Amino acid sequence: MRIGILGSGSVGRALAGKLLVLGHEVWVGTRDVAALMARGAAPGARGEPFAAWHGRNPNVKVAPFAEAAAKGEILVNATAGSVSLAALRLAGEKNLAGKILMDIANPLDFSRGMPPSLLVCNTDSLGEQIQRAFPAARVVKTLNTMNALLMTDPQQVAAGDHTVFVSGNDAGAKRQVADILTNWLGWKQVIDLGDITTARGTEMILPLWVCLMGVVGSPMFNFKVVKWEASTKPI
Amino acid sequence: MRIGILGSGSVGRALAGKLLVLGHEVWVGTRDVAALMARGAAPGARGEPFAAWHGRNPNVKVAPFAEAAAKGEILVNATAGSVSLAALRLAGEKNLAGKILMDIANPLDFSRGMPPSLLVCNTDSLGEQIQRAFPAARVVKTLNTMNALLMTDPQQVAAGDHTVFVSGNDAGAKRQVADILTNWLGWKQVIDLGDITTARGTEMILPLWVCLMGVVGSPMFNFKVVKWEASTKPI
Repeated sequence: MRIGILGSGSVGRALAGKLLVLGHEVWVGTRDVAALMARGAAPGARGEPFAAWHGRNPNVKVAPFAEAAAKGEILVNATAGSVSLAALRLAGEKNLAGKILMDIANPLDFSRGMPPSLLVCNTDSLGEQIQRAFPAARVVKTLNTMNALLMTDPQQVAAGDHTVFVSGNDAGAKRQVADILTNWLGWKQVIDLGDITTARGTEMILPLWVCLMGVVGSPMFNFKVVKWEASTKPI
Repeated sequence: MRIGILGSGSVGRALAGKLLVLGHEVWVGTRDVAALMARGAAPGARGEPFAAWHGRNPNVKVAPFAEAAAKGEILVNATAGSVSLAALRLAGEKNLAGKILMDIANPLDFSRGMPPSLLVCNTDSLGEQIQRAFPAARVVKTLNTMNALLMTDPQQVAAGDHTVFVSGNDAGAKRQVADILTNWLGWKQVIDLGDITTARGTEMILPLWVCLMGVVGSPMFNFKVVKWEASTKPI
C-alpha cells in the first residue's frame, strides 16, 4: 500500500521505517525537501539529522507535503501539533479527501518551558480541529499516547500487553486503523473511544505522560486499561 | 486514628465505611447536618439517601465541615470539585493547618451536559488551587483517577495490579499517604508524580476516564502503568 506520512521527526521516521519493512511504499512529506536534507540535528529526533536517517532508509521517498499526501492511499499526520493545521493546508484539501488520516499529533505548547501545556484542550482538541478543517478526510486519532518507538513495536513493553486508543467519526476508517494497529504494528488492546470529540481524552493525558516520563526515567512505558472480569471476581 | 472526611457523596461514603472497618474514628463533614439527614436520594450516590447509608453505618460521626475538620488528624477532601474551595473555607483554615489533606476531588463541570469538561486544567489544577488557598495544609492529590468502590478495594479489578498516583509538595505527607494507600487500602502500585502541579496530569485524565466508562460499560476499571523491564527485554 502507498502511505503518506506528513512530518519528518521521530514519529514520522519510526512509522516510515516500520511500514517500509512491512513492504509498503512510504512517502514522507515535508515543507521543503532541500531544506530538510540540508538541516543539521533537530531536537526530538535523537540528534540525528534527517539526511543521515534517510541514508539508512533510502527507499523511503521524500516529497513536499502535497505530493506525499497525493501519493498516499492512507495518510498519517506526524507533524508537531502546533503546526499540524498549517502542514495539512499545504498538503491540500483535495489530497486528503476521502482518505483515512491517522492523526498522531499532540497540541503541545513548549513556549512556557517544561512541562509543556496544551494549545487546545477540555472543550476542543486538535483531532476535532483537523476534522472540522478537512471535513472530507476520514480522521482517526490514534497512537498519540505513547513514545514513537513503542508505537511501532509495542512488544518492547510488558510483552505488548497495553493499550492504544482510536477516536473518529467514521466507523469504517476506525476498523481499518484498528486492523493496521493490530496486524501491522502488533497492538493487542485497541479501544475505540467513540467519535472524534473523544480525542480530547487522549490528548489530555499528555501532561500525565510527561510527568511519568520523568518518574520512570524513560519514554518506554504505556497505560494499560484493566477492568473487572468475571475471572477476577471474588468467589 | 481520627479521620475527617469532607463530603458525604459516594466517595466520602466509600472511604468512611472502609476506614471504620479498619478501626478508625471517622467524622464525615457536611454543610448542614440536619439537611443532609433529611435529604432524599442524591445523584451519584447510587440512589441511597445519606440517612439510609448512615443507618447501616451508625458509628460514622456526622458533623458540620468545621467540626469534622477539627476532629480529623488526617483530612480527606471528598466534596464535588466545583464546591471544594467553598467547603474547605467552611472547614476553616486553622482546622486544616499542619494536617495532611488528601484531595480526591475532580473539577468536573457538568453545566454543559455530558461528557463533563473541567473547570480548571492545563496551566492550573484544583489541587494547586487548594494548596494555594490553604498554604499550611499538606495537600496530597490522590485517588482521583478511579471509581469510589475501587479506591477502597483495588482487588476488585485485575487482582489489584493497577496504579494510583500521588502529587504534593510535602514529601513526608506523600510518604504517609502512600503508606495509607498501600497498607490500609491495599494498593500495590503507588506512583509519586512530583509536586502539586502534577495534579494537572491526573485531573486531566478524567475526560478519558469518562469515555472509558461508556466503552467498558462500568466504572470498575483503572489504568496500570506498564514500563520497560529487563525481564521483558528481547534477548
